[in-house]
Amino acid sequence: MAQLSRESLHASVADPVLETISFLNEVMSRHPQAVSFAPGAPHPSFVRTLDGHRYVQRYLDHLADTEGLGRERAQLLLGEYGPSRGLINGLVAAALGQDLGTEVPPQALVVTVGAQEAMFLVLRALFRSPSDLLAVTDPSFPGITGAARLLDIGVVPVPERGDGLDLDRLEAACEQARRQDRRIRLCYVAPDFANPSGSRMDLAARHRLLELAERADFLLLEDNVYGFTAAPGAELPALKSLDHGGRVVHVGSFAKICFPGARAGFVLADQEVRAADGTTRLLADEIAALKSMVTVNTSPWSQALVGGMLLEHGGSLRTLGAEKSRLYRRNLALLTDALDRHVGASPPPGVHWNRPDGGFFVRMTLPVPADAALLEVSAAKYGVLWTPMAGFHLDDTGDRVLRLSCSYLDPEQIETGVRRLAAFLRNELGS
Amino acid sequence: MAQLSRESLHASVADPVLETISFLNEVMSRHPQAVSFAPGAPHPSFVRTLDGHRYVQRYLDHLADTEGLGRERAQLLLGEYGPSRGLINGLVAAALGQDLGTEVPPQALVVTVGAQEAMFLVLRALFRSPSDLLAVTDPSFPGITGAARLLDIGVVPVPERGDGLDLDRLEAACEQARRQDRRIRLCYVAPDFANPSGSRMDLAARHRLLELAERADFLLLEDNVYGFTAAPGAELPALKSLDHGGRVVHVGSFAKICFPGARAGFVLADQEVRAADGTTRLLADEIAALKSMVTVNTSPWSQALVGGMLLEHGGSLRTLGAEKSRLYRRNLALLTDALDRHVGASPPPGVHWNRPDGGFFVRMTLPVPADAALLEVSAAKYGVLWTPMAGFHLDDTGDRVLRLSCSYLDPEQIETGVRRLAAFLRNELGS
Repeated sequence: MAQLSRESLHASVADPVLETISFLNEVMSRHPQAVSFAPGAPHPSFVRTLDGHRYVQRYLDHLADTEGLGRERAQLLLGEYGPSRGLINGLVAAALGQDLGTEVPPQALVVTVGAQEAMFLVLRALFRSPSDLLAVTDPSFPGITGAARLLDIGVVPVPERGDGLDLDRLEAACEQARRQDRRIRLCYVAPDFANPSGSRMDLAARHRLLELAERADFLLLEDNVYGFTAAPGAELPALKSLDHGGRVVHVGSFAKICFPGARAGFVLADQEVRAADGTTRLLADEIAALKSMVTVNTSPWSQALVGGMLLEHGGSLRTLGAEKSRLYRRNLALLTDALDRHVGASPPPGVHWNRPDGGFFVRMTLPVPADAALLEVSAAKYGVLWTPMAGFHLDDTGDRVLRLSCSYLDPEQIETGVRRLAAFLRNELGS
Repeated sequence: MAQLSRESLHASVADPVLETISFLNEVMSRHPQAVSFAPGAPHPSFVRTLDGHRYVQRYLDHLADTEGLGRERAQLLLGEYGPSRGLINGLVAAALGQDLGTEVPPQALVVTVGAQEAMFLVLRALFRSPSDLLAVTDPSFPGITGAARLLDIGVVPVPERGDGLDLDRLEAACEQARRQDRRIRLCYVAPDFANPSGSRMDLAARHRLLELAERADFLLLEDNVYGFTAAPGAELPALKSLDHGGRVVHVGSFAKICFPGARAGFVLADQEVRAADGTTRLLADEIAALKSMVTVNTSPWSQALVGGMLLEHGGSLRTLGAEKSRLYRRNLALLTDALDRHVGASPPPGVHWNRPDGGFFVRMTLPVPADAALLEVSAAKYGVLWTPMAGFHLDDTGDRVLRLSCSYLDPEQIETGVRRLAAFLRNELGS
């Protein structure tokens, strides 16, 4: 039997985050009674009550009647191959246009297998030469650094503070790249409640980032997955809404706002691409072409599930997200409140955490490494689980950081979990 | 508005096959009355009658009752994120094991977003260094060359004859690579009724290919998408069934045997991978890890559709494929018979075609370029469409070749189409 050495495989197979996740799953399966602040997944109540058949039927009705295709043609569209760019682009464009407050042309959208494929395709389209670099917030969502690793794209970490990306450091990184005959081609940023930092950029910072992108000639990859969790009245415009220079490629996910099992997301890429012969097309066209070599097209069944859900909510992402946003804001408030009550009164020295205004996550810093060994103690002796953040950081500043997610839990689990966490912190770090 | 030059994007955005396909779609939309031998898609009758809801329910019942998860947990599995390697691996492993005549461990399978993602991930996992080369049959399914282009993998074309890959040329290519300090790492081959050549390797050739892979130390990527169209009794064992040296990574699609809209396929990669620390895992584990950076997981809804269809057909891919295989064999016989009747009696000089025993396609060679201009004439004056093959070839030998697909048509369309094609050949090439 031929045996392969791991060193002969592409370097991306050895990803520390994947090892963290499989370790976490393994710990969770050994401690089923533990309260787990690990999963960043949508709350199960939104999935348990899902009537997928109804959504598919609703989308079929829309195709058959509203779009005038008739029942048979509609049924074929769901079962056959479809265009790489997607089927539900018109519905998504209308909904996204409402959210962004700008007109979104359907042909500037590609419906993808989740936001992950969207990010992957954007990287593939935009990175041609090894001298092109990707700037990412540090810490960062592992999906973006993983996709870059898969494509051998050089990554430049830019620290993220409570109010988002450090713009001075980003500008310095652009300068440094230029001195080395390289350039920052694209900068990944999640301006609203980033995973895992929870940080949020204010309006002025968003404008400054766009100005910097213009001045230093790079593009922005905006990940807007958690934008819908902002409190009503406290929403800030997406970078794409402020983007007059065509600097922003905007990706989104339907996992949180619809449900993860649809595996659908999208990318809005309205930049114009000019070929040597003078013809132009949209960046979305190029991304759709690349998609045909990765997944061909997003399952039309998945798209029907999302399309039907959108139609049942008046074609509005905001309406779809509103109920979910309420639950996540409640949970986040319960989590930070419980931390204040149970840990905050007398936290062990060196223990501190942030209090984000939205998103799914709280980050906590410990005075000791938040590693697998400590997690094992936390699970076995205290019955509480969290995610070690080392894999989310590009240097070692995450070694003492853990992430608490509130999204998958019910109020009493949050209360019990924080009580257990407080005991863990008190007994294991308190002396 | 920032404008991007196409030259600044990754080179894979300019794919000649994609341009052929969009041109074809455009011609088809301008000539809706033409008979089109272009689409290689499954016959619409298999999609029109599809009861997706029933299949999803069937799979839910299976999870809830047979696997004992209960209704609520089953519903959650369908709606939530799932493991990168897939949910229905047990069902697929059992079905594939029957087909291959070997035991297939579920953990050696990854369920992918179609065979396309499977091929893409296999390439990514196996190609680390620019000195590693991919050998492909020439002509070749554009999905494999497209995926290689996306990953900047060097491709070595190996001519395909009526009985499959030219093994002497493949061996010579291995030698040549070695002389240049490079190596053939992987060879793509579709041994049964390859798209577009229709060629099939006999049993002796399969054994010789496996021996060569052993001797020259490369792996085989077996694409088995059309294997199910073999006539009953005329099936040949897949390369994977004959693979005692662990040389074969086997990919398959559910698009043809179930339906394309599920967008599901799989890869069987049971090779052992040894890390520097002596631990081992399967190549499928590495592929699943890479998948988490491309699409995270295949939609569990899609997997439920496929899983339910498998369950309704006794868990057998062969049973699922049998009815479909009958239709495609009938259509292929009608197509070759009509060609014999309408063209064969007095074909214009230089016109010839093959008569494959299975698959969806007949290849026809013309004495003149089978290009966009000629297709336009064929569509406008004669009402018949076909696919120019230039983009499926790695050199210019495909410039005079067209492909006729029988899979999407009904008997009377095939008869009418060939009659029109005969007139086109007679009038446009006959003098």
